[in-house]
Amino acid sequence: MERLPGFRDFYPEPLPSRDAGWSFNARQYIFNQWRETARRYSFHEYDGPPLESLELFTTKSGDEIVGQLYNFTDKGERTVALRPEMTPTLARMVAAHERNYKKPIKWFAIPQLFRYERQQKGRLREHFQFNADLIGETDPAADAELIALLIDTLRSFGLTEQDFVLRLSSRNAWHEFYEGGRDGVSPSLESAEYEFFQTIDKLERTPPEESEKKLSALGFSLADVNQFIESGKPTTELQRILDNLAARGLREFVKVDYHVIRGLAYYTGVVFEAFDVKGEFRAIAGGGRYDNLVKLISGGKVDLPALGFGMGDVVLLELLKARGLLPKFDAVVDVFVLIEDENIRPQSLKLAQDLRAAGHAVEYPLMPAKPGKQFKRAQELKATFTARLGSDSQVWIKNLKTREEKTVSLAETLLYFPCKAGI
Amino acid sequence: MERLPGFRDFYPEPLPSRDAGWSFNARQYIFNQWRETARRYSFHEYDGPPLESLELFTTKSGDEIVGQLYNFTDKGERTVALRPEMTPTLARMVAAHERNYKKPIKWFAIPQLFRYERQQKGRLREHFQFNADLIGETDPAADAELIALLIDTLRSFGLTEQDFVLRLSSRNAWHEFYEGGRDGVSPSLESAEYEFFQTIDKLERTPPEESEKKLSALGFSLADVNQFIESGKPTTELQRILDNLAARGLREFVKVDYHVIRGLAYYTGVVFEAFDVKGEFRAIAGGGRYDNLVKLISGGKVDLPALGFGMGDVVLLELLKARGLLPKFDAVVDVFVLIEDENIRPQSLKLAQDLRAAGHAVEYPLMPAKPGKQFKRAQELKATFTARLGSDSQVWIKNLKTREEKTVSLAETLLYFPCKAGI
Repeated sequence: MERLPGFRDFYPEPLPSRDAGWSFNARQYIFNQWRETARRYSFHEYDGPPLESLELFTTKSGDEIVGQLYNFTDKGERTVALRPEMTPTLARMVAAHERNYKKPIKWFAIPQLFRYERQQKGRLREHFQFNADLIGETDPAADAELIALLIDTLRSFGLTEQDFVLRLSSRNAWHEFYEGGRDGVSPSLESAEYEFFQTIDKLERTPPEESEKKLSALGFSLADVNQFIESGKPTTELQRILDNLAARGLREFVKVDYHVIRGLAYYTGVVFEAFDVKGEFRAIAGGGRYDNLVKLISGGKVDLPALGFGMGDVVLLELLKARGLLPKFDAVVDVFVLIEDENIRPQSLKLAQDLRAAGHAVEYPLMPAKPGKQFKRAQELKATFTARLGSDSQVWIKNLKTREEKTVSLAETLLYFPCKAGI
Repeated sequence: MERLPGFRDFYPEPLPSRDAGWSFNARQYIFNQWRETARRYSFHEYDGPPLESLELFTTKSGDEIVGQLYNFTDKGERTVALRPEMTPTLARMVAAHERNYKKPIKWFAIPQLFRYERQQKGRLREHFQFNADLIGETDPAADAELIALLIDTLRSFGLTEQDFVLRLSSRNAWHEFYEGGRDGVSPSLESAEYEFFQTIDKLERTPPEESEKKLSALGFSLADVNQFIESGKPTTELQRILDNLAARGLREFVKVDYHVIRGLAYYTGVVFEAFDVKGEFRAIAGGGRYDNLVKLISGGKVDLPALGFGMGDVVLLELLKARGLLPKFDAVVDVFVLIEDENIRPQSLKLAQDLRAAGHAVEYPLMPAKPGKQFKRAQELKATFTARLGSDSQVWIKNLKTREEKTVSLAETLLYFPCKAGI
């Protein structure tokens, strides 16, 4: 039986052949760095159900999203879906209990997300995402705090300004451009602004003639649009964010880039995306302000400004591999207890037990085995120490890294392996 | 919009009103203890997809299980289900790549599992489970190693032999009883043994007359069955496990109890369940040998003996709460940076940045606020320190726990807060 296409198995090291399995340890390493950086920024972790009512997602994104979801009707006749993103769940959770929390709320989650996408080679149908959100503050100081978290998260993996850039933009800037440009000429429909945003969003991937055509239908010229982008002049709001980041020493990671506008309809202000500098990969992370979403999800009951970003595990892992920044994950065995005399297996088991109780990762031969085979196994496992109890109650200890050897009494053994910190 | 019934939201502290939300920190605490104990036992973590082909689960458990699953047909016409248990995924993963791993394989996972159960008050439709398995060894030494892990996992939460007991039993013992007892009398059908096992499994929850009736139809008397159970005489196999656990100093946690037989059809040998001593809760954990499952799942390609256990997060959490063993989870803020002079906000942001870079959890007022309000916020957050940069580049530091105060230069501040270990 096979796993479903687009889903991943995560194996311990040593990994099976390439493409056969993903590394659980690499995944855990990424999660740990995400958690650790969020902790330093005083963001607190939450989680919601991977299964939600379908309505939660269509309320935010419209019915078109259903085509990309794992949705079904459950045995209680509820229309449900596996979560394709975390923000609707967050908005639901915050709206339900916001009075319980002081503002601004700084929360993060590491959900697994699911999308039914047309099958393409290497294209996944699930991934994990670091989601950080800041709720209850409209000031650009909030945007700067969140963007600083994003930058420091990437830095925690050893990535530098040589590796990634945060492209900062603003829907407000484009709104002003739009309002200013259409004077006298142009479409008065509200939906026209959405269409304009969509055209900007696709500008880098669309032939100029086509963009020109679309823009002029909306009352704009491609030349004006390009000039605005190339100016890269920060709005007052963006300038405040840049100054704030400069104070932290993070200015060099950010570039104003009005190409970024984010396709999703619900963004309301500042938007941003992080890319690798060489342009080899898809976006590493993206986010922005969505000041109306909590109100929408709560049916008007709770109105809170908010912004957030998402960072997926797949592009990040590819980037870390490409830059040689992924650590090696050897299975960690602190002490391998050799049992060469089966008569003292019970005492050897007790030694293993005591070492484990002191916090050490301990292995031993489950079944009788020749001394040479046991030692070889300890080496394969890259154990730091071997410890062999003798019939004289003396323990022969060998450090496999330094090759040092020592014989101590059973009573002294635990002193030789001091209790591990944090146990 | 509401979350689906039977699903949980996990909130940061302080928690909303009782029953409104579950504690993310409590969940993470439980996961951390699970991981930490598994590490000491040299079990390695893996994970598979929460969504699998329906066939994976029906192959193991028969078509009856479908009624309890979240199953549906995906957009590619595949019949799929949210995983109700982890063992089939493990068997699939091991069968696919077992040659890559030395035996015995010692793996664990912490999957979220899903069952569509009839709605009852407080009855959940998802939970998390610590799954540990040992694959590739038939000897009872393997059973003892796994049971020791189970016991030490519960002990890592502060639970003692006053709190829980592991009831150890064996399908082999019952098989021998069955084979011995039916001589001359009785049903020769293979399915009769399964029926016999089911009757034993339900013995404690069934009126004696009813059990008597069922047993005599199978050629047994309730008196003989009860006598066998009360004898509690360990088989040779169980005695070896008991001796092994005794060598480790864990004998007092285990009791031979032939009431335990585990309803699931696929167990083949030793079976066990952990219960709270007072009998207030459902089983804390359960498991046993399933030597035929890998072969079944791999369609006969791979044949490996195996055993494992599962420990859910819900009963465990209830038990820890009832015994007062759940720690308090205050949000951790190491340093709250006070910004009383808005002219030096940029320098204060830099201080916050440097402290975070040194590994400290740092908070500061995003927006201008009165000194008293800022200090109150630091206290609410239970910050360990406040640090206030003055216009003279001196930093006033206060330890909110000891009330000690000190003024140091900006350069000295980072020395005062030494770099956190492990950063």
